[in-house]
Amino acid sequence: MKNLEEKTIREETIFKGRVVSLAVADVRLPNGETGKRELVRHPGAVAIIPLTHDGKIVMVEQYRKPLEKTVVEIPAGKMEQGEQREKTALRELEEETGYKASGLDLLTSFYTAPGFADEILHIFVAKGLRQQKNSLALDEDEFINVIEVTLEEAKQLIEEESICDAKTMYAIQYLELQHLKEESN
Amino acid sequence: MKNLEEKTIREETIFKGRVVSLAVADVRLPNGETGKRELVRHPGAVAIIPLTHDGKIVMVEQYRKPLEKTVVEIPAGKMEQGEQREKTALRELEEETGYKASGLDLLTSFYTAPGFADEILHIFVAKGLRQQKNSLALDEDEFINVIEVTLEEAKQLIEEESICDAKTMYAIQYLELQHLKEESN
Repeated sequence: MKNLEEKTIREETIFKGRVVSLAVADVRLPNGETGKRELVRHPGAVAIIPLTHDGKIVMVEQYRKPLEKTVVEIPAGKMEQGEQREKTALRELEEETGYKASGLDLLTSFYTAPGFADEILHIFVAKGLRQQKNSLALDEDEFINVIEVTLEEAKQLIEEESICDAKTMYAIQYLELQHLKEESN
Repeated sequence: MKNLEEKTIREETIFKGRVVSLAVADVRLPNGETGKRELVRHPGAVAIIPLTHDGKIVMVEQYRKPLEKTVVEIPAGKMEQGEQREKTALRELEEETGYKASGLDLLTSFYTAPGFADEILHIFVAKGLRQQKNSLALDEDEFINVIEVTLEEAKQLIEEESICDAKTMYAIQYLELQHLKEESN
């Protein structure tokens, strides 16, 4: 196999924000020429598939400014500096939905947009949910409706394009696959 | 349901690049307060699941500078201004793998990173592949190895973390689901 690595010659930071930063790198291409790469840096995130005792999925409805649209997603949140991803997952689940989970299994991790961003997303399945009495502990700029849906209802929300992001569609497909595996056993 | 919309008060463009642009918006939050949103803008992209006559998946190995890693993905590419997404898909498939497809079905579309970016990705399944004699027509800064793998080999590449991005893992899970559906019929 050819070596495809692109070594950085020089990198300029354009922006450092609260969520992302942006840099432009001059790189040495595999053929010896130079090229430019735009690099969005993100701290990484977790997402949770919270399953209730009666088999429903707990989801959050929120406005996503980049899309100019209110969408339904599985709960998710950015990793905090130095925080274990399991801890982030339990924290975000409770903050966004009011549920504590007794168990958490890592389903998978993937890069969301490898062409321009380094965001990695860790997806957990959360079981043993217990609803807390206190209200949600949302960030001051976070506004959310919590809903609980069946797998069939989630598939309907995909049809209606209310569910329309990669992690949530991956999660629904995963649950469909699990359902089919259980049926065929 | 509460109205969760965040209206833009003011928006500043920070960067306009070849792949992405970046803006920061001051928004009116649902509670009347103001907040800031970082918005990465992207022209959108297509990805293709190319299936050969003998049931293999055609994939591309390339270096992803944001990840500092060589990874295996399904073929994909940015949409060009004014180009139909089916045309983009057929063009990218041929440029990156040397295959022409006789048929193309839209599997789904999703936003890859709705928390900070507006990139939408349209995923097509391509069948009726015919290998072209001429060599690949890659962009001048694009370097790719083409590989053909079975579904089992693709799952092994996920285990090894060579396949590690959302669209490709969604695609593999889709093929697994299709395989299971066919078996149970």
